[in-house]
Amino acid sequence: MGTILLSEIAGTAMLTLMGGGVVANAILGKTKGNGGGWLMINFGWGLAVFAGVWVAFKTGAHLNPAVTLGLLFSEATEYAPGIPMTVGTTLTYFLAELIGAFLGAVLAWLAYKTHYDQETDPGTILGTFSTGPEIRSKGWNLVTEIIATFVLVFVIIMFGNTPNELGPLSVALLVLAIGASLGGPTGYAINPARDLGPRLAHAILPIRNKGGSDWGYSWVPVAGPLIGGALAGVASIVYF
Amino acid sequence: MGTILLSEIAGTAMLTLMGGGVVANAILGKTKGNGGGWLMINFGWGLAVFAGVWVAFKTGAHLNPAVTLGLLFSEATEYAPGIPMTVGTTLTYFLAELIGAFLGAVLAWLAYKTHYDQETDPGTILGTFSTGPEIRSKGWNLVTEIIATFVLVFVIIMFGNTPNELGPLSVALLVLAIGASLGGPTGYAINPARDLGPRLAHAILPIRNKGGSDWGYSWVPVAGPLIGGALAGVASIVYF
Amino acid sequence: MGTILLSEIAGTAMLTLMGGGVVANAILGKTKGNGGGWLMINFGWGLAVFAGVWVAFKTGAHLNPAVTLGLLFSEATEYAPGIPMTVGTTLTYFLAELIGAFLGAVLAWLAYKTHYDQETDPGTILGTFSTGPEIRSKGWNLVTEIIATFVLVFVIIMFGNTPNELGPLSVALLVLAIGASLGGPTGYAINPARDLGPRLAHAILPIRNKGGSDWGYSWVPVAGPLIGGALAGVASIVYF
Amino acid sequence: MGTILLSEIAGTAMLTLMGGGVVANAILGKTKGNGGGWLMINFGWGLAVFAGVWVAFKTGAHLNPAVTLGLLFSEATEYAPGIPMTVGTTLTYFLAELIGAFLGAVLAWLAYKTHYDQETDPGTILGTFSTGPEIRSKGWNLVTEIIATFVLVFVIIMFGNTPNELGPLSVALLVLAIGASLGGPTGYAINPARDLGPRLAHAILPIRNKGGSDWGYSWVPVAGPLIGGALAGVASIVYF
Repeated sequence: MGTILLSEIAGTAMLTLMGGGVVANAILGKTKGNGGGWLMINFGWGLAVFAGVWVAFKTGAHLNPAVTLGLLFSEATEYAPGIPMTVGTTLTYFLAELIGAFLGAVLAWLAYKTHYDQETDPGTILGTFSTGPEIRSKGWNLVTEIIATFVLVFVIIMFGNTPNELGPLSVALLVLAIGASLGGPTGYAINPARDLGPRLAHAILPIRNKGGSDWGYSWVPVAGPLIGGALAGVASIVYF
Repeated sequence: MGTILLSEIAGTAMLTLMGGGVVANAILGKTKGNGGGWLMINFGWGLAVFAGVWVAFKTGAHLNPAVTLGLLFSEATEYAPGIPMTVGTTLTYFLAELIGAFLGAVLAWLAYKTHYDQETDPGTILGTFSTGPEIRSKGWNLVTEIIATFVLVFVIIMFGNTPNELGPLSVALLVLAIGASLGGPTGYAINPARDLGPRLAHAILPIRNKGGSDWGYSWVPVAGPLIGGALAGVASIVYF
Repeated sequence: MGTILLSEIAGTAMLTLMGGGVVANAILGKTKGNGGGWLMINFGWGLAVFAGVWVAFKTGAHLNPAVTLGLLFSEATEYAPGIPMTVGTTLTYFLAELIGAFLGAVLAWLAYKTHYDQETDPGTILGTFSTGPEIRSKGWNLVTEIIATFVLVFVIIMFGNTPNELGPLSVALLVLAIGASLGGPTGYAINPARDLGPRLAHAILPIRNKGGSDWGYSWVPVAGPLIGGALAGVASIVYF
Repeated sequence: MGTILLSEIAGTAMLTLMGGGVVANAILGKTKGNGGGWLMINFGWGLAVFAGVWVAFKTGAHLNPAVTLGLLFSEATEYAPGIPMTVGTTLTYFLAELIGAFLGAVLAWLAYKTHYDQETDPGTILGTFSTGPEIRSKGWNLVTEIIATFVLVFVIIMFGNTPNELGPLSVALLVLAIGASLGGPTGYAINPARDLGPRLAHAILPIRNKGGSDWGYSWVPVAGPLIGGALAGVASIVYF
């Protein structure tokens, strides 16, 4: 349990530190990467997964409750070599992923502290922490998150559920691809922890000019990825 | 036959879901990736192939009638390990690729539903489904598609016709490259199913503000890739 | 000799077809990739090498007289497995690379024929075939080409001079990098055949609105790469 | 000692030649890549590391005092196969990295000589040599460099401290990612030699229109990376 906690906290913190960082770089004022565009953001998030997977390789590098859930529903018999699928390990993965995602967001805020201090638009500030839809329609936003997360988890299961030497690169490219392809409407949470952890950080941190944390939308990027991940796990059984 | 159908439908659906998605992200209004540019589109399509190949690895991941045809005309003796080249398997590949491409386009439409609903330009809507030339000249458009597909299939045959661990990455990079290099005039169908399946979806789906499906052009991205693929298969025999 | 000719002609034609294509896509009017930017051009050329290397793997995929010359001056004892270093093989490589580069440029012109027909700026047209400096200063332009080609050939020799499974990707990334890093002043010929072959094509082809082929500059992207490549070969001996 | 000197000088020179080059390409006037954007710069630096690692593989390709220091503080028992961790080897790595970084910057200046000659903004000129913050706040700038370098060295230690066949690509992608994600506030020195060597070159070279070398800031990109690297080494012991 301790190994899962440490490993998944560290890996998921790496994920949201770098992922939150690239959005901050792209949209906060006066950064070197200001206006760097969607493809830069896609590269940032894709390679944030790349780094996170190396950090958490000992525990299979889920970094994402939707992946944990997808594996649980799939034919896989353990979460990583030597880690059985039990209620305890499942909840430990969930908890570690959420804590890690929170901590990473705090670190990203520290890395961009001076830029946050000068930012006056609350929407931009929240956008560096959590996802939000461009066109608000919770039903369709949910559909988008379900489809995008299904793609993520289904293809990861196709890779095999343990990282190999190419593994981190494959997952990174997959996440880059999902961002470019399916991230347009909602900003591709595709990971409940990636969205909820930073949203908690946003709510708690003493950020100048921040507004509300948009809790009204917050269940969409949690429920959508969990549904999509579970569906992908089930579909993988049917598919083989 | 069932394996070919299921595998190639799933893989080709993944291809057009992500490929159609990236174009929707780039050109529909109010998306996160709006104006993301041609390189983002190239990454989206290249990595759509990447994901699709993992999904359809059991059947060689053709995902493309031009690849199927190119292999048939080449010195390869089977379509994938254990799948012989017969009239029946060939037609099954063709059919599965077309069905998959159709389904993927429907899913992409669902993922971007709210953005389609607000789009008022019929040309933009069609552009997220099927290819169209920037300068309409069916003869020269055909030439472009023949050359681009020749490159695709010839180099794929150089890779070997079965995926290996690097395989999906190689094909993804090749498709990215063809888009950047040879996609300028016609939008690089280089795959009859990728163009025809989504065009059928465009014709059938109840999309607000859609115009015609440009059937007058539709034979070019079918014939061009089939000719280019077949030429590549034949050329590979001469070349070895 | 026949194998070298066929293989290097095909591989170098692939190189300039895709490389010329990406520049055409980026700068000719009305293309899908118009204004796609320098990074897209770098990807196009890098992955053009990727494709070309797969095509010419049998003969070591030099595709570039500077590589051939660099290997000759290095400690390598053959050009590729089974191909000795003789005056005959060296000249065959040179000849094949030049012919291939010429043919690829012709194919790229055909692929973009309708866009060439509408282009009215002779400088833009020549720019899709051959390189030219942004600030004309033959001495310094030569220095830039020498440095850039030194990097290319020296690092290729570090890879080992025969392609392995990662090989084509390594070379592709190296060429992408050189374009981004050192391509700013002269457009990175770093390959005499890549520049001279397409320049000959430009001179011969019946292109509407074309101007002169800038023969006054043409020796720079030939001499610079040859000098840089030879220096890299020699340096690699000292270095080991 | 001689091997370390030669190898790390050559590798680090490759790093700053290509890294300095891509910034020059992006921000100096009249270059092909002018305005190429932050992602292009990230690719340039990432792949500069890629090339540098191949060049310096014999000595573990540190290229960076923060990496050397991180390894020293980690559980690693040698700097590279056959190279023990002693005061002498440590200082030799530091010296070689600094000399190499200086030489690479000189070469980049030569490659872009004509563009430097026409540049009139001293800040732009310095920006092609060394890093500088967008919002000057030495404390927070230090925090950013510490976090970014921690990510670099910690993940490199996760890779294992010797290059394997995928290794150069992994490090390249990691550096690309750090630039996109955490480079926004300070321009990601994440390497004392990469910043100090070129700053010395800037101070010494007879560059037209150059201003001061901003020595007041120069300790930040030295101290930050050293602290971050050392912390990563220590953390890696706790982490395992």
